[in-house]
Amino acid sequence: MKPTLTLIKVGGGVVETPPQLKALLTQFSHIKGYKALAHGGGRSATVLAEKLGINTQIINGRRITDRETLQVVTMVYAGLVNKNIVAALQALHINALGLTGADMDYMQSTKRPPTPIDYGYVGDVKKVKADTLAQLIHQDIVPILAPLTHDGKGNLLNTNADTIAAEAAKAFAKHFEVTLIYCFEKKGVLLDPQDDDSVITHITPQTYTDFLDKKIIQGGMIPKIDNAFDALENGVQSVIITHADQLTTPHSGTRITLQ
Amino acid sequence: MKPTLTLIKVGGGVVETPPQLKALLTQFSHIKGYKALAHGGGRSATVLAEKLGINTQIINGRRITDRETLQVVTMVYAGLVNKNIVAALQALHINALGLTGADMDYMQSTKRPPTPIDYGYVGDVKKVKADTLAQLIHQDIVPILAPLTHDGKGNLLNTNADTIAAEAAKAFAKHFEVTLIYCFEKKGVLLDPQDDDSVITHITPQTYTDFLDKKIIQGGMIPKIDNAFDALENGVQSVIITHADQLTTPHSGTRITLQ
Repeated sequence: MKPTLTLIKVGGGVVETPPQLKALLTQFSHIKGYKALAHGGGRSATVLAEKLGINTQIINGRRITDRETLQVVTMVYAGLVNKNIVAALQALHINALGLTGADMDYMQSTKRPPTPIDYGYVGDVKKVKADTLAQLIHQDIVPILAPLTHDGKGNLLNTNADTIAAEAAKAFAKHFEVTLIYCFEKKGVLLDPQDDDSVITHITPQTYTDFLDKKIIQGGMIPKIDNAFDALENGVQSVIITHADQLTTPHSGTRITLQ
Repeated sequence: MKPTLTLIKVGGGVVETPPQLKALLTQFSHIKGYKALAHGGGRSATVLAEKLGINTQIINGRRITDRETLQVVTMVYAGLVNKNIVAALQALHINALGLTGADMDYMQSTKRPPTPIDYGYVGDVKKVKADTLAQLIHQDIVPILAPLTHDGKGNLLNTNADTIAAEAAKAFAKHFEVTLIYCFEKKGVLLDPQDDDSVITHITPQTYTDFLDKKIIQGGMIPKIDNAFDALENGVQSVIITHADQLTTPHSGTRITLQ
């Protein structure tokens, strides 16, 4: 049987609020088995861009990444956010290793075509090479994945952290039994967005179609769940959407499976 | 016999000038055997600090690193400079991996005592763990070392790139026959600072004492050469100080050996 690996995706809101980040990393350090973390950092990028007088433009949740903005996100995602997480985890005796897709060439992407919307230096994942990483994980190294990939031609590309998490999870599934956990600010996918306790505990393709028809699931949750199904269809064992506080709480959040 | 490893230290001036960086990385890609690169980035850090309205103070060539400046150098060294080098090397088919000392806990330091000068978040190297890195190098991974270490308590610390290079070289010497090359803007250590062609081809402890007495070698070159002797006394095979243009030119620059 393959060993287990838990891959946590945590959004900008949590990693950029020091007490929340500390709580999250402490929980993360208690997860049993092999693990990895994928993180965002968008809010800090926006703050730095503002300080530098660079205009931030976000369309459909994606940042328009011109050359200057690419420098900003490279500094914030790969530098500030990633390395502070790595140092904080080392203090918790977790042997973290921070990575962009360029590092060890683990995740290549292609620049998104400029039509219908020119997102600039934004990459869609093309190829994931996880063998060396898997070998490091077997030695208790814990990868910390920044939301940047590269095109193999010398350019870094801004890449959505949810996508990084899903693509890494799929590649790791060859070596591990992978659980992918998306943390966010709600307890899970909600039946009623006004009621924080109305968590849908389980979603399958059948119930998903129903939720979509009834417009219970909409907006930014749709690409997240589509990513989840894609991961499941590519060998990932289970996908969970939950609150960052409940990482180590059994049966919390929304579990997504194929059946 | 141990395999050879060439560790290049390249200063801020080269890595921050795109055409010079490109030329350097192309040369670097042609070096035979295993290799690694340690880099600076001080000029970009100063530029970013200035844009953010943060005052830069440098004493004895070392940056006073308060909390805000630590964020700046983390963004510039570990993010902007390091990841652009990694992506550029991947385009040259060099399987680079960018690292701070916190990554895989490879280099720990202690915060420098605040007297006589309080440098702030600046670290003096305490412990280097190079075994996992050595194993990666044997798989043709090329480490790119940013001038940051960590204290094991969650803090990143700004650390001189020359020192990073020397300490890494010493640790690698257990696994490889190491040549450490310091690149800078001169052809080597000069007999006459006004004459670029007056390169001292060879320095030993005996001739070094003589050069010091005659004040031929002075200023910033002294800690560089002290670092070099320290590396040689700790297993490094040879240390070369040369121009970044002459990385692959045999017998260029100043060679420093114990005998």
